[in-house]
Amino acid sequence: MPWTSSNRIYAKPSNTSSVQDEDMGPANRRRAQAAPTAAADSNGRFELSDHGYGKNSVKLLHVHRDGDFHTIREFEVSTELKLASESAYVVGDNKEVVATDSQKNTIYLLAKKYGVKTPEEFGAVVVNHFLYTYKQVAEAKCHVLEYPWERLQAGAPHNHAFVYSPTATRWCQVSQARHEAVIVKSGLSGLRVLKTTQSAFVDFVQDEYTTLTDAAERIFSTVVEAEWTYESMRSADFDDAWLTVKDAILDKFAGPPDTGVYSPSVQHTLYQAEKVVLEKVPEITWVKMTMPNKHYLNIDMSKFPANVTKGDPKHQIYQPTDKPAGLIYAQLRRRPRSKL
Amino acid sequence: MPWTSSNRIYAKPSNTSSVQDEDMGPANRRRAQAAPTAAADSNGRFELSDHGYGKNSVKLLHVHRDGDFHTIREFEVSTELKLASESAYVVGDNKEVVATDSQKNTIYLLAKKYGVKTPEEFGAVVVNHFLYTYKQVAEAKCHVLEYPWERLQAGAPHNHAFVYSPTATRWCQVSQARHEAVIVKSGLSGLRVLKTTQSAFVDFVQDEYTTLTDAAERIFSTVVEAEWTYESMRSADFDDAWLTVKDAILDKFAGPPDTGVYSPSVQHTLYQAEKVVLEKVPEITWVKMTMPNKHYLNIDMSKFPANVTKGDPKHQIYQPTDKPAGLIYAQLRRRPRSKL
Amino acid sequence: MPWTSSNRIYAKPSNTSSVQDEDMGPANRRRAQAAPTAAADSNGRFELSDHGYGKNSVKLLHVHRDGDFHTIREFEVSTELKLASESAYVVGDNKEVVATDSQKNTIYLLAKKYGVKTPEEFGAVVVNHFLYTYKQVAEAKCHVLEYPWERLQAGAPHNHAFVYSPTATRWCQVSQARHEAVIVKSGLSGLRVLKTTQSAFVDFVQDEYTTLTDAAERIFSTVVEAEWTYESMRSADFDDAWLTVKDAILDKFAGPPDTGVYSPSVQHTLYQAEKVVLEKVPEITWVKMTMPNKHYLNIDMSKFPANVTKGDPKHQIYQPTDKPAGLIYAQLRRRPRSKL
Amino acid sequence: MPWTSSNRIYAKPSNTSSVQDEDMGPANRRRAQAAPTAAADSNGRFELSDHGYGKNSVKLLHVHRDGDFHTIREFEVSTELKLASESAYVVGDNKEVVATDSQKNTIYLLAKKYGVKTPEEFGAVVVNHFLYTYKQVAEAKCHVLEYPWERLQAGAPHNHAFVYSPTATRWCQVSQARHEAVIVKSGLSGLRVLKTTQSAFVDFVQDEYTTLTDAAERIFSTVVEAEWTYESMRSADFDDAWLTVKDAILDKFAGPPDTGVYSPSVQHTLYQAEKVVLEKVPEITWVKMTMPNKHYLNIDMSKFPANVTKGDPKHQIYQPTDKPAGLIYAQLRRRPRSKL
Repeated sequence: MPWTSSNRIYAKPSNTSSVQDEDMGPANRRRAQAAPTAAADSNGRFELSDHGYGKNSVKLLHVHRDGDFHTIREFEVSTELKLASESAYVVGDNKEVVATDSQKNTIYLLAKKYGVKTPEEFGAVVVNHFLYTYKQVAEAKCHVLEYPWERLQAGAPHNHAFVYSPTATRWCQVSQARHEAVIVKSGLSGLRVLKTTQSAFVDFVQDEYTTLTDAAERIFSTVVEAEWTYESMRSADFDDAWLTVKDAILDKFAGPPDTGVYSPSVQHTLYQAEKVVLEKVPEITWVKMTMPNKHYLNIDMSKFPANVTKGDPKHQIYQPTDKPAGLIYAQLRRRPRSKL
Repeated sequence: MPWTSSNRIYAKPSNTSSVQDEDMGPANRRRAQAAPTAAADSNGRFELSDHGYGKNSVKLLHVHRDGDFHTIREFEVSTELKLASESAYVVGDNKEVVATDSQKNTIYLLAKKYGVKTPEEFGAVVVNHFLYTYKQVAEAKCHVLEYPWERLQAGAPHNHAFVYSPTATRWCQVSQARHEAVIVKSGLSGLRVLKTTQSAFVDFVQDEYTTLTDAAERIFSTVVEAEWTYESMRSADFDDAWLTVKDAILDKFAGPPDTGVYSPSVQHTLYQAEKVVLEKVPEITWVKMTMPNKHYLNIDMSKFPANVTKGDPKHQIYQPTDKPAGLIYAQLRRRPRSKL
Repeated sequence: MPWTSSNRIYAKPSNTSSVQDEDMGPANRRRAQAAPTAAADSNGRFELSDHGYGKNSVKLLHVHRDGDFHTIREFEVSTELKLASESAYVVGDNKEVVATDSQKNTIYLLAKKYGVKTPEEFGAVVVNHFLYTYKQVAEAKCHVLEYPWERLQAGAPHNHAFVYSPTATRWCQVSQARHEAVIVKSGLSGLRVLKTTQSAFVDFVQDEYTTLTDAAERIFSTVVEAEWTYESMRSADFDDAWLTVKDAILDKFAGPPDTGVYSPSVQHTLYQAEKVVLEKVPEITWVKMTMPNKHYLNIDMSKFPANVTKGDPKHQIYQPTDKPAGLIYAQLRRRPRSKL
Repeated sequence: MPWTSSNRIYAKPSNTSSVQDEDMGPANRRRAQAAPTAAADSNGRFELSDHGYGKNSVKLLHVHRDGDFHTIREFEVSTELKLASESAYVVGDNKEVVATDSQKNTIYLLAKKYGVKTPEEFGAVVVNHFLYTYKQVAEAKCHVLEYPWERLQAGAPHNHAFVYSPTATRWCQVSQARHEAVIVKSGLSGLRVLKTTQSAFVDFVQDEYTTLTDAAERIFSTVVEAEWTYESMRSADFDDAWLTVKDAILDKFAGPPDTGVYSPSVQHTLYQAEKVVLEKVPEITWVKMTMPNKHYLNIDMSKFPANVTKGDPKHQIYQPTDKPAGLIYAQLRRRPRSKL
C-alpha cells in the first residue's frame, strides 16, 4: 500500500506557497489587477469551470402565532452564490464577497419579514433577494430541508404542541441565474415501506454468476427517494404536489387494502408510481425515484434438526440485511410536444 | 501533546505476549488446569469482577400470516451470556463457550417456534432457554429493540402493507441469573416534541457566571428517553404499559388541546410525567426519564436597521441549536411499604 | 400545514393499480410486446430519460498473502447497469435483468480472480466484465470506497496486523458506455485540518445585512473533499496521484512548518491547492474541491466581570460550531489546447 | 400491534395537568412549601431515587500560543449537578438552580483561566468549582471527550497546523460528591484493528443450535473500547496511562511484528491486554474492555463453476459483515489487600 507510506505525506512543502511571495509581489499584483481570472493567472492553461460559496445548514424555526392557534415549520436552509468575478479565488480579493455570515443573517431576516409559506416559495424569495441586492451575483441557489413536525392530536388538534413524525422528509432546491427563469426542484426522502406478499422476482438471467433462484413470493421493502421539477413557479401548488407524489408511491407500492397489488420487480413498481405522478400533476416536468431493495432473506432451517425448527406455520421469520442492498432508479419525463 | 507522539505507539512489543510462551508452557498449563481463574493466574493480585459475551444486533422480521391478514414486527435482538467459569478468558479454553453464532441461530429458531408476542415476553423466552439448556451459564441477558412499523392506512387498514413511522422507539432488556427471578426493563426512546407557549424559566441563580435572563415565555422542545422496571413479569401488560408511558409524557408536556399546561421548568414537567406513570401502572417499580432541553434561541434583531427587520408580528423566527443542549433526568420509584 | 393532514394520505387507492388489470390484460400484453418503452406505454406522452439498477455497498476484504507478509485492502463496492431495453420498468419483464445478487457474486469472483491492485483498476475490471459478458448492457458503472487501513508500526512494520486510520478516505467511480472510453473519477474525502494563525478574512461587503467584522487573524479549519478525472486510464498512476492531491492540499493549507502560509480566504487557499494538482499531475483533466469553513468563534468575555475572565494570556478559548458552516467550492480544469 | 393503535395516543388529557390547578392552588402551595420532596408530594408513596441536570456537549477549542509554537486540544465537555433539594422537580421552584447556560459559561471561563492540561485535570477543576461555589450542590460531574487532533508533520513538526487523526478517541468522566473524594474514570474508544492470521476459534460447544465449525485460522478484527479508574488523582500521569493502555491493546492483539501472537479467542486476548494494564500502571484500580468480534466471513466458492472462481491463490477474499457482531467484555480489577 504505497499510498499510505508516511514519507510521501507533505514531505517537501514548496517555497512558493505563501500569498505574499507568489501573488502579492509586484509582478503578480499587476497581473492580477489586469486580469484576475484563473486563465490569466495560469498563462492560459487552466480555467475555473465551476465555483460557488455560501452558508450550509442554517437552522430556523418559523412560528406563526394567530391568537392561541400556533403553526410551526422548522427548516435547515442553505444558500449559495456564484459571483461573476473570479478574483476572490485567484487573488484573494474579497471586495465583492457577501460573507456567508451575512447570508445567514439574510435568511433569518427574510423569514422574519415574509414568513415561510412553503419551502419552495421561501427559496424563491431568497434567491431573488440575492440577485436583486448584489449586482456582482451571477447565480443564486437556496436549498431548504423541512423537519417533519406534525400537530399533536390530543383528542382534538392541539393549539400549540407538536410531535416529530419523520415518516418522510420534504426538501427543495431553488436556483436562478441572472436574466433567467427560476428553477424549482422538490423532493421527498426516507419513505420506508414493507409488504409481506404480492411481490415476486422471477425469470431473470441465470448464468454461472447466479445463485439466486426464482422467488414467486417475497418480502418487498424499500426506502423511497423522489425528486421532481416544475414547469414554472406560477401555477404550482407545492404542498399539494408533494402529497400527491407521496400518495402515488404508497398507492402503487401497496395497492388496495384488501388485495394489494402485484409487483413483478422494483423496477416496474417504481415506473408505475412515476407514471401516476406525471398524470396527476401537470406542472411537473420530470420525476426521478430511487428505491433500494432492502433485502429480507429467508433463513435456511434445513441445517437444524426438526425438534428445534418446528413451530406454528403462521410464524415466519426473515433476516433483514443492511448491506448490500439493491438500488433501482429511473427518471420519467414529459416528452416535448414536438416529439408527439 | 505527548500522548500522541508516535514513538510511544507500540514501540516495544513484549517478548512474552504469545500464548505459546506465556500460557501454554508446562508450568502455566499446570497452573491453568488447576485453577483457571484470573485470581490464580495473577497469583492473587487481580480478579474478574464482571464479564460476559454474546451476539449483538441480530436483525429479525417476524411475520404472522393469518390468512390474508398479516402482521409484522421487526427487531434487533442482542444476547449475552455469563459463564460460571473464567477459563475462556484466562486460558483460552472454549469447551464451555456457546458460540455467538449459535446464539444467533437460537434467536431465529426460538422466534420461529414461539413467535414474538411482545419484546419483553420474547426476551424472557430467550434467557430462559439459555439457562435451561446450558448448565454452565450463570446469567443470561436479552436486549430487544423494536422498529416502529405501522400498518398502512389506505382508507381501511391494509392487509399486508406497512410504513415506517419512527415517532418513538420501543426497547426492552430482560435478564436472569440462575436461581433468581427474571428482571424486565422496558424503554421508550426518541419521542421528540415541541410547544410554542406555556413554558417559562425564571427566578434561577443569578451570579457572575450568568448571562441568561428570565424567560417568562419560551419555546420548549425535548427528545424524551424513558425506562422503567416491572415488579414481576406475571401481571404486566407490556404493550399497554408502553402506551401509557407515552401518553403520560404527551399529556404532561402538552396539556389540554385548547389551553395547554404551564411548565415552569423541564425538571417539573419531567417529574409530573413520572408521577402519572407510577399512578397509572401499578406493576411499574420505578421510572426514569431523560429530557434534553433542545434550545430554540431568540434572534437579536437589534443589530440590524429597521428596514430589514420589519415584518408581520405574527411571524416569529427562532434559531434551533444542536449543541450544547441542557440535559435533565430523574428517577422516581415506589417507596418500600415499610417506609410508609 | 395541510400537507400533513392525514386525510390526504393514500385515501383513495386507484382501482387500476394491479399489474394483472393494467398491464397484463390482453390489450396491454400486445402493446407491451410490440413496444415495451415508456413512450409507447404512455401513448407518446412520457419517456424514460435516465435509469439504472445495481448493488450497493458490497463489502469486501482483499488479503494478499505473500508468505508471512500479508497486505489488506477493504472496500465497499457498488455496481450499476443500464440496460438497452426499458421492458423491465415498463412491463415488468426480467428476462434481460442481471440480478443485483448476481452482480454481488461477480464482484467477489472478479476480486478473487484478479485481486485488487487499485480501486480504479478494479473498477475498470468490473465495468469491462459486465459490458463484455452481457450484450443487453448499454452502460456499466462501479463505485469503490476504500477503508483507510494502515499497517501497524510495531517498532518495525508488522507482517499481518493493521490499524484503522481514517485521516482521509479514498474512493473512485468508474463508468463506461458501450463503444465509448472508460471514464475514471477519483476522490479524497474527509481530510480535516486546522491552523491557529496565518488566516484572515477582511475587506468583504459591508451592508445592512452584515454583522461580521474584519478578522485579521482567525482560526481556519475545514474538512476537504476533492475529486478529479483522468485524461485516460493508460498513463495514470492512481496511487501516486491520490497522494499528490493530498499533499497539495496540506501544503497549500499549512505552508512551511516554521512560518506557515497566509490565507486571505478559503476561496484563495482552495484555488491554490487545485492549481498545484493540475501542475503536478498532467494526467488529471480537472479537479474540484469543496471546503466547508468550520467556524471557531471568539467568546465574548466582556459580559463577565474581570475576576472570572482573567487568565494566562497564552490560553485562548474558542467555541467550535457544527451548524451552520460556510461552504466553498470550485472546479479548475485544463483548457482545451484550441483555446491557448 | 395494539400498541400502535392511534386511538390510544393521548386521547383523554387529564383535567388536572396544569401547574396552576394542581400545584399552585393554595393547598398545594402549602404542601410544597412545607416539604418540597417527592415523598411529601405523593403522600409517601414515591421518592426521587436519582436526579441530575446539566449541559451536554459544550464544544471548546483550547489554543496555547507560546510564541510561534501553538498547541491545540479540542473537547466536548458535559457537566451535571445534583442539587440537595428536590424542589425544582417537585414544585418547579428554580431558586437554587444554576442554569445550564451558566454551566456552559463556566466551562469556557475555567478553561480560559486555567487552560486544559489534561481532560482529567480539567474535569477535576470543573467539579471542584461547582461544589465550592454553590452550597446547594450535593454532587458534580464532568465528562470530557477529546477530539483526536495531531500536529501536522511537514518534514518537521508544524508550528501551528494540525490534522484530525481519529485512530482512537480519549474521554474521561470526573465526579465528586460533597465531602467525598473525586472519582476519575478514563476511557479509550474506537481503536479498530485487524489481523490476517494467528487467530483461531475451536473446541467450543457443538449442539443442535450450532452451525459454525472449528476455525483454526480466521481473520480477527475488533473495535476496542476501554475504560478504567484511578486509585487517586494525586499520583496518576493521565497522558502516560492512556498511552500505556493503547499500547497494551496493540501489543496483545498484534504481537511481535514478524511472528505475531496466537489468539485462541477474543476473550483470551482481551484478558491478556487487561492484565498488562494492571501490571504496568499501578494507579489503575480496574480496567474494562469491550471487543466486538467484527466478522469477516469466508465466501463459499463451491456454488460456482471452476472457470469463474479460479485465481491466484495468494488472493483471498472475505465478506465483512456489520450486523450482527459478537460482543465480548470483561472487567479486571486489583484485589483488595485483605483478600491476598
